[in-house]
Order: sequence, then structure tokens, then C-alpha cells
Amino acid sequence: MLVRPKPGILDPQGQAVEGSLRHLGFDVVHAHVGRLVEVELETDDREEALAQLERMCEELLANPLIESYAIELERV
Amino acid sequence: MLVRPKPGILDPQGQAVEGSLRHLGFDVVHAHVGRLVEVELETDDREEALAQLERMCEELLANPLIESYAIELERV
Repeated sequence: MLVRPKPGILDPQGQAVEGSLRHLGFDVVHAHVGRLVEVELETDDREEALAQLERMCEELLANPLIESYAIELERV
Repeated sequence: MLVRPKPGILDPQGQAVEGSLRHLGFDVVHAHVGRLVEVELETDDREEALAQLERMCEELLANPLIESYAIELERV
């Protein structure tokens, strides 16, 4: 799952990275920092996996007030 | 850029997420937590963008001793 600060929400980590990158001489317009959460599941069922991952985001991994999430499935 | 703890390196955030998800009743095998850093660049040149992003990871965004990184380009 990718968890990102919602547009318009203060992103102090992103601002810090942006400032540091400019200070190092990089020509950046914007920088945003989010979280990558990779979870290996027992289930082999695609629909079931998606439903579980969505519940994980809602219940634990993302703060719905200030963050959005995107789910990517990969078979291992 | 996606920055992940290298395999075998202690990942306390991942362990905390894993424990919390199990506690909530989810059937997870493993969980790992990394960072997502999204940067908008001035350049329109693919090679130039890749080179810049690689330098950003090496110089600031990833700790090469304990983290690996992956770069994904997207044209906006």
C-alpha cells in the first residue's frame, strides 16, 4: 500500500526533503513523503486480498482525515 | 522513489505493523514499512531525470548501508 498526505494537507516531511534537495543543488518543484507498507498475505484470492488490504488501510495504516491510500496487488 | 529496508535488516516499523495487524485479526505473513518520496522535477529529459533521482537517493533519501531504493518515472 502507498499512503500519501492528501493534497492541501501540511506535509512537513515533504517540505524538509524539498528544502534539503534544493540545498544540495537539485532543481525540484515539489517533494512529498508518504509511506510504503508491504504486506504478505496467506490468501491466494485476489478479491479477498483486496478487501483485506482495504480494511487494513481504513483501520490502521492510513489516517483518513489527512491521508489517502493506493493498493497494489502482486502475486509472489 | 521507494525506499525499503534491505532484507535481513531490522525493520521495527514493519514489525510493529505486523503485530498490530495480527492483533486486529488479519492473517499476515510479513509486513515491511518503507518510504515513498515523490519529487517533481523541472527537467523534461528522461535520462537527466533518472540521473538526478539516483543522486538524490544516494546523497539524501536512502541510507545505502541499510536501505535499498527503486526509482519510478512518471511524466506529468
